Amino acid sequence: MAVGPATLPQLAAVKGFRLGTTCAGIKKPGRRDLVVMELAPGSSVAGVFTRNAFCAAPVTLSKQHLAQGAPRYLLTNTGNANAGTGAEGMADALSCCQALAQLTGQPLTAVLPFSTGVIGEKLPVDKIVAALPAALEQLSEQGWEDAAHGIMTTDTRPKGATRTLQIGGQAVTISGISKGAGMICPNMATMLAYVATDAKVVQADLQALLAQAADASFNRVTIDGDTSTNDSCVLVATGAGGVALAPGSAGWDGFAEAVNAVLLELAQAIVRDGEGATKFITVEVANAASSPEALTTAYTIAHSPLVKTALFASDPNWGRILAAVGRAGIDNLELDALTIHLGEVCIVAQGGRASSYTEAAGKAVMAQEEITIRVDLQRGQYCERIWTTDLSQEYVSINADYRS
Amino acid sequence: MAVGPATLPQLAAVKGFRLGTTCAGIKKPGRRDLVVMELAPGSSVAGVFTRNAFCAAPVTLSKQHLAQGAPRYLLTNTGNANAGTGAEGMADALSCCQALAQLTGQPLTAVLPFSTGVIGEKLPVDKIVAALPAALEQLSEQGWEDAAHGIMTTDTRPKGATRTLQIGGQAVTISGISKGAGMICPNMATMLAYVATDAKVVQADLQALLAQAADASFNRVTIDGDTSTNDSCVLVATGAGGVALAPGSAGWDGFAEAVNAVLLELAQAIVRDGEGATKFITVEVANAASSPEALTTAYTIAHSPLVKTALFASDPNWGRILAAVGRAGIDNLELDALTIHLGEVCIVAQGGRASSYTEAAGKAVMAQEEITIRVDLQRGQYCERIWTTDLSQEYVSINADYRS
Repeated sequence: MAVGPATLPQLAAVKGFRLGTTCAGIKKPGRRDLVVMELAPGSSVAGVFTRNAFCAAPVTLSKQHLAQGAPRYLLTNTGNANAGTGAEGMADALSCCQALAQLTGQPLTAVLPFSTGVIGEKLPVDKIVAALPAALEQLSEQGWEDAAHGIMTTDTRPKGATRTLQIGGQAVTISGISKGAGMICPNMATMLAYVATDAKVVQADLQALLAQAADASFNRVTIDGDTSTNDSCVLVATGAGGVALAPGSAGWDGFAEAVNAVLLELAQAIVRDGEGATKFITVEVANAASSPEALTTAYTIAHSPLVKTALFASDPNWGRILAAVGRAGIDNLELDALTIHLGEVCIVAQGGRASSYTEAAGKAVMAQEEITIRVDLQRGQYCERIWTTDLSQEYVSINADYRS
Repeated sequence: MAVGPATLPQLAAVKGFRLGTTCAGIKKPGRRDLVVMELAPGSSVAGVFTRNAFCAAPVTLSKQHLAQGAPRYLLTNTGNANAGTGAEGMADALSCCQALAQLTGQPLTAVLPFSTGVIGEKLPVDKIVAALPAALEQLSEQGWEDAAHGIMTTDTRPKGATRTLQIGGQAVTISGISKGAGMICPNMATMLAYVATDAKVVQADLQALLAQAADASFNRVTIDGDTSTNDSCVLVATGAGGVALAPGSAGWDGFAEAVNAVLLELAQAIVRDGEGATKFITVEVANAASSPEALTTAYTIAHSPLVKTALFASDPNWGRILAAVGRAGIDNLELDALTIHLGEVCIVAQGGRASSYTEAAGKAVMAQEEITIRVDLQRGQYCERIWTTDLSQEYVSINADYRS
């Protein structure tokens, strides 16, 4: 199951960014599971990574290599997360990077590794290394769609977003792909995202832009509250398009807005493809005393199994939303002041069911595939918005059967 | 589904404590849904209640009446939680108490009301009031089993525990019943528990004993992380048995231990009957730097949908447990120091899968109906233990269909 139509947009090529995808046979023969991305020399690269203390070996290594300078290749395998694999996992990640570095005549640190899949099993280094030449042969600026398939695990559909804008009479392109369907939670999840632009942006500006954009997109989605060990999001600026941009310069704001839009679209695509998802839910908490208060309240609602199962059942069981707000730990919450809306329908006011509420109105909203839950705390000026899914029997089935 | 055999023990009568159960037709005709408990004059009563900010009208009223002194009747209905019902809900709770007070010639404050069931629907006061005489007619010290059925909602089995001990040559009896199967979380849940003893204990001592015992039992269980609006646990000491007890007196320690045992048995019975539960899981976090750190880690594991679905599938997917520990927010966690055991099997050591681990050994533990997950953080001296369930498709079905 997934929410909405599964349409991968035509992803515009980004000059200086080539993608090559192949089948390494990591889990199943014939499945695309290895992706190499090649960056033009001089590209700037920004990255944000999982905050899980048990971050996977490739995450540790990608951070190290990124800090040392000039990445030229992003190497991604699916089917195996190389997480919880200790010192052996780090050696394995290094071996894969080393093999690609040798094939391309680059230093080891020019390769950033990414892995996603089952945790705790030994990375099949031999299969990955053996498939690298085939992946390199496929390198093409037209390789986006193949790569969008190549990074999938339990995803039911490829995910991509693209924008082209005119800055000073010249075209600037931003394209990106993402993967992830479970273990999705704030601070990155079992989620990989790669976004590239042909604009020229210095690394520090690119990193600041990515951090802010990821915070407003990938760090605002949750499917099951589980933060994975492997989440990574990379933003590449190849500079091959000839337009140089910096904060304050003409065109920067439009560019930043487009990057934000691409990341948000990629993040929301992950929610729409949430494991077993039948609904796409926006949770908005308005007029909180602080941003953390708004976020905590929103996540308490979004993580409540009872709220999520009611959403799955299209049941306007607003009492469960109210109970979730009640246990969100807000100090001195004024029960009579707050309101809760389901879409445009006010369901809670003055400490109980809104007098204007009717079950029919609630049911009409709940029957929709996209639903907004809006809590107005009436105690401050901070608003936050996050996105999540419902909880279905299929979520349980998918995660009970994942390894078998 | 539920874990283990469904055997309600023979609950010993408690002198001075009578229970009467009847069918008020609140949700379904012919179902026991109304319970009156009568306390001998001079009984001490202690209570602990939900910390959900949206606590239900009966919780607010019970706390008020308890503070004013001498409760003589506990009035419980199922099928309707009278929560999220605003000022009308409070008026309805008062009406029920008033009716019972009139029938029994007691002041209004002598009645403590309890409600459990669906949130946000108007309490059917007329049905409850009409059924009170029948419940009073049934009052009997032998009424425990009937009452254990009468307080059930989505429970699949009645829950009770009993202890009789000898103190100074005299028998002291403690009996209790509980209900709850979903919306179970620390700080009470959709959970009601009533425990009575014939010992004489002053209110302050009884309250302190209950607070400590509830903290070690009901506040250590979780099914879905949802804290309900109605949770209440009451401990009554009728004094009718003739043994007076106080902290420091002979027999107190044994008495306190027995009260603790009754509460723990009742709390664990709720977990065993968790909605859709097929496993009874103990999560133990040892050698943490503080008690909150141990508890947070334990609850992060216990609330992880991925861990819970793996437990349901009997899949030793230890990577999910490791990932949960990794996102528990422990500062400066030393990955290489900690160990994780599944039963007696070491699954994680030195930052990855334990070298001694075999899939066969992991599967053997996972196949059991009762499983202990033990995390040794190796960074302090605090240990905590909580109890939870797995997550099955049936949990989703139950909660998606609850109102229909």
